[in-house]
This record gives sequence, C-alpha cells and structure tokens, in this order.
Amino acid sequence: MTTIFDLETPCLLLDRSRLDRNTAMMLTRCRELGVQLRPHVKTPKSIDIARAAHAGEIGPITVSTLREAQHFAAHGYRDILYAVGIVPAKLVRVDAIQRETGAKVRVVLDSVAVAKGVAAAASGLGTAIEVLIEIDSGEHRGGVAADDPALLEIAGALQGIREVSLAGVMTHAGHSYATDVPEQLRAIADHERECAVAAAQALRGAGHACAVVSVGSTPTILHATHLNGVTEARCGVYLLWDLAQASRGICGTEDIAVTVLATVIGHNRHGRSLLIDAGALALSKDISANTFMPSAAYGLVCDAKTAAPLQPLAVTQVHQEHGTVAVPDLPSAAYSA
Amino acid sequence: MTTIFDLETPCLLLDRSRLDRNTAMMLTRCRELGVQLRPHVKTPKSIDIARAAHAGEIGPITVSTLREAQHFAAHGYRDILYAVGIVPAKLVRVDAIQRETGAKVRVVLDSVAVAKGVAAAASGLGTAIEVLIEIDSGEHRGGVAADDPALLEIAGALQGIREVSLAGVMTHAGHSYATDVPEQLRAIADHERECAVAAAQALRGAGHACAVVSVGSTPTILHATHLNGVTEARCGVYLLWDLAQASRGICGTEDIAVTVLATVIGHNRHGRSLLIDAGALALSKDISANTFMPSAAYGLVCDAKTAAPLQPLAVTQVHQEHGTVAVPDLPSAAYSA
Repeated sequence: MTTIFDLETPCLLLDRSRLDRNTAMMLTRCRELGVQLRPHVKTPKSIDIARAAHAGEIGPITVSTLREAQHFAAHGYRDILYAVGIVPAKLVRVDAIQRETGAKVRVVLDSVAVAKGVAAAASGLGTAIEVLIEIDSGEHRGGVAADDPALLEIAGALQGIREVSLAGVMTHAGHSYATDVPEQLRAIADHERECAVAAAQALRGAGHACAVVSVGSTPTILHATHLNGVTEARCGVYLLWDLAQASRGICGTEDIAVTVLATVIGHNRHGRSLLIDAGALALSKDISANTFMPSAAYGLVCDAKTAAPLQPLAVTQVHQEHGTVAVPDLPSAAYSA
Repeated sequence: MTTIFDLETPCLLLDRSRLDRNTAMMLTRCRELGVQLRPHVKTPKSIDIARAAHAGEIGPITVSTLREAQHFAAHGYRDILYAVGIVPAKLVRVDAIQRETGAKVRVVLDSVAVAKGVAAAASGLGTAIEVLIEIDSGEHRGGVAADDPALLEIAGALQGIREVSLAGVMTHAGHSYATDVPEQLRAIADHERECAVAAAQALRGAGHACAVVSVGSTPTILHATHLNGVTEARCGVYLLWDLAQASRGICGTEDIAVTVLATVIGHNRHGRSLLIDAGALALSKDISANTFMPSAAYGLVCDAKTAAPLQPLAVTQVHQEHGTVAVPDLPSAAYSA
C-alpha cells in the first residue's frame, strides 16, 4: 500500500476529512444566515476543492486573478466574481473568457474614472459586463464609503450603456483578520453588513438596480449577528484554514486541512537544530500568525502520522529550500503530540 | 510595435542588458580568481538565463531541488550539483534523472548516518553517485566543521563502495548576507575559503581523493582576497540581483535585472494610498531588504519606462493579489525618478 511516506518531499498534503468538515460547516452557516455562499478559491485554486465547497456541485465562486477565472470557467464554472479592482485594459481578457466559455465574469470597481473606462471598453468590445461597486467597510484598502457621493456618480457613469449593468455592491472587511476578540469581530461583521446594505439602499433610492449585496471574510461570516439585506457571502480561508486563523482563535489547529510533508535532512547537534527540506518556497515567508502566536514562526512542526503539533517545535528560519527547526534544550518528555 | 504596456499585469520583466552585464561581471571575476563558475539557478529556473550565465554555452550549474535538476538535465545540462542535503530515499530520483538524461547529478551530505544510507542505496540501485561533503564555514545551517572528526568518518563510510565516489567538499557562507561592511565580507569570504581548503587537506591527508573544493555566495565571491585552493564558485543572486543585495551595497538598484510590472487599480485619496495589482504572490512576502533599508518595505516603486525608483514610494502592504503604496504627504516635486 502506498502511504504518505512514499511521497517525495516537500509535498503538500490535503486532509480530505478536514476539508469536508470545513465545507459542511460553512454551507450550514450560510444556509442559516440565508445567504448564497460564493467561496473564494484563490488559495486552493482547485476544481476539486471548489466542488467540495458546494457539496460536490458547481456553484458561484470568487477569484482573485483572471487566470483563475479562466481556469474555473474552462471547467464549467458559469458564475464567477473577479474580486480585485478591474481596469479597462483587462476587459479584453474578461471578454475572451466569457466568449470562449459562456461563463459570466463579474467585475469590481470603485471610481468614476474606472467606471467610465469600463463602460467605454465594454461598448467597444460589444461584450456584456456586470459590475459590482466596491464599498469600504473599514479596511480602507479599496472601495468608496457607503455615504460618499462618488457612489451615485459611479452608478451614473455606468448608466445607459447597453453592454454594462450594475449588478450590485460588494465589500470585504479584511481588517477582521487583525483581532482575536469575538466582540470586536462581531462589531466588524455587523459594520460590514451595515455598510453594504446602506450602499445598496442609497443606490436603490436613486433609482439604480442593486440585486447583489455581497460581503465577507471568514471571520465576519462566522461572527455576524445576522446578514439581513445581504445576498451573498464571500469567504475562503475556512476551506483549508491556516495558522493565522488558528492564532486568532477563529479555528483550531485540528481544523487546518493542509500541511507540508518534509524530510529531516540534517541534525546540527552543536547548534541544537534540525534541517528540513521545506523552506520558503514550500512553506512561504508568511508569518502573519506571529502577531498573535509568536511561537508559530514559519510553521508548527507536526507529527507526520497524526498531524498533531509537536509542541514546542516550529520552523524558526527558512531559506529557499531549507527550513531550520530550533530544538530547545528540554527533556525529551517535554515534546508531545 | 508591442511594448511592455501591452502586457497583462502583474508581469515579471527581465532586463536583458542588465542580465548580460551581471553575467559578464561574474565570468570575469571567476576567471581572475582562477575558479570554475557553477552558477546557482534556483532563482531564475530558466534555461535561457543559465545559458547566459555561461556566455551562451551549457556549463556546470547548481540547483536546489531535484525537479530543477530534472528540468536542466532534460535541456542538455550534464554537470549538475544538487546543493541541498540529500537523503537516501531521494537517490531513486537522482538515479532516474541520471539514467534518462545521461547527466551527472552530484549530491551533498554532512553526516555518517546519511553517508552510510547513500552508500547502501547507491549500491542497491547500481547507480554511480558522486558525493560532496558539506563543510560548515560559519553559517551553522548545515555541514561539519573542517576539524570535526566526523569529516573523516563520513569519507570512510563512503569508501570501498563501487557505486559511490567522494568528489570533494563544498561550503556556503550564507551568513555573508547578514552584513554590509566590506571588511566583514572579506573576512567571511576568506574564512569560507580557509574552511573548505582545510577540509580538503584533511581528507587528502587521510588518503581520500578530494578533487572539488566548492565555495560561494555572491557576496563572498565578490569580496574574497583570493581563492587559492578552491576549484569552483557557486553564486546565483548576481544573475538577477535583488533589493536585499542592493540594501547591503553588494549591487546597485540599477543592477537588478527583474522588476514586476503592475497596474494602478485604485486610488484612496483619503487614505493617501495607491492600490496596485501586484501583491504577495507577484512580489513575495520577502522583506529581507528591510534590515538594512527599512524604506524598501515589500519593494520599491519604479518608473515603468526607465525602471528608476520613484523615491520615496514603496509597496507598504501586500495582500494576495493587492499591493498598497502609501503616498507620503509631500509636494509632488519631491517624487523623483
């Protein structure tokens, strides 16, 4: 029988039972909230995982690049939101994907200048483009405030162009990743909803259609008091989870569905460290867990058979293909899975 | 005419004239030092760039994964050093590459246990394996000290096995990246050489062959007083350079041969920031330049036409596909290319 120990390392392992538990949890949560789940698939970039997210079916998805949009459209996905601000020059690619696959690729924008450019480009291409206006609900990365006069100006710039239709509004309270306090998460989630709903009401009040009210990050979807007025939830990190989320108590380490299988390739007894064949490219240089869990370093070291963390071991240094695991001077009984 | 402005963004741009200048510089330097250049191609992973490194020819190279070894072997490379510590289980793959392509893939090890395992595995596979023993010249990541009795034990463990031959020693003074003081760099470079040569002498003194004495990192090759007793130089970052090297004064920003072309996709006037479509995946989360150049953040913002840095702009925050450029409140004349 082939086991994980027959795999070449470093190797990414997916725990299917954890994935299934995660997808079931979020499908239930969105059903209870009464919103359509539109999972963000930018991390897995996998058809199988996107299908698992919709209980084996093809469903609406969110992507972060047009290459992801193309990949999923080529595999039968028909309702795709490209959730990174569009620029007019990229509509050529959007048009190509839509024509070649029959998929609809919705785009996002947050300025009058881009709205005018998109309208002109869509007209020139003769391609139908559905637009969501991005609302800033506190992250201040992109988007217009719900009460910013620019909101109605943007909608106005899209009006009267046959190829362009305003589908609605979207927002992402990404600052929800910056806290581990449930009360703060609830407040951020509720504010995310309020901003999106307020923007939709402002648009409708001015005579614009606004069918879609899209919100979400995994922490806010899980902590929202309710999602009245919201139509869809975009969350993605719940699919596989990660140490950053675990460090903030949003999930447990036992929910994280991917791990990196590595081989010990060296033992520096003087320096009290192990060398493994998983470095910066296998593990990434993402240390965002460290804000809340400094001991996480570049990743916890887990037992290969059980995936349980071998406290207190962590990957303390990475080079491109080398990882260093400092071995604190403890009695061996102190290391436990 | 197609220009870079017709490319979809984000897009990696290679400046061929800078690459050519860099490769010519290092070929000259190694000729002057009297050592064979064996460039590390783990960053470019490109046949074209590996050829450029040897003035258009196929030459010896260093790689960091067996997948890189396979790729280069399949494209005619015959003399490859896999410079990450081997484990016996990986010899199956080494053997497959050698048989399929006729290439020689040298391996590296630093312990008696691995030496015995490699000898047994090579014997079992009936494949010829050339081994370099890794010497620790101060980085303390891997390797044995030149005066460690383990050095001769390792050589002994490889002895008398028909399939295995000890080709020599190698070391990498990776701690050379931790300083920007030329005198310290010279001392590290000279110590790197001394350790490698001392290890080779110890092996030869005990009756072992040690044809190869391999050293190098770009900073040490450039700062070494001489390389007497050394046979080859492994350096790689000089091919494309990077901001970490520029921050330490090893190169200038005008030597960096790759840049990421990005599009401004948003302008947050209240927050005084620009949003670009190059984030963590396009730029990486590597911030190793910041130790010596805190203003580098995730990367300097350069003029798309000239590649000159637009001081003081930098990518101050990254998400997966978004980059944020803080715009300090300065008169516009203060921004210069």
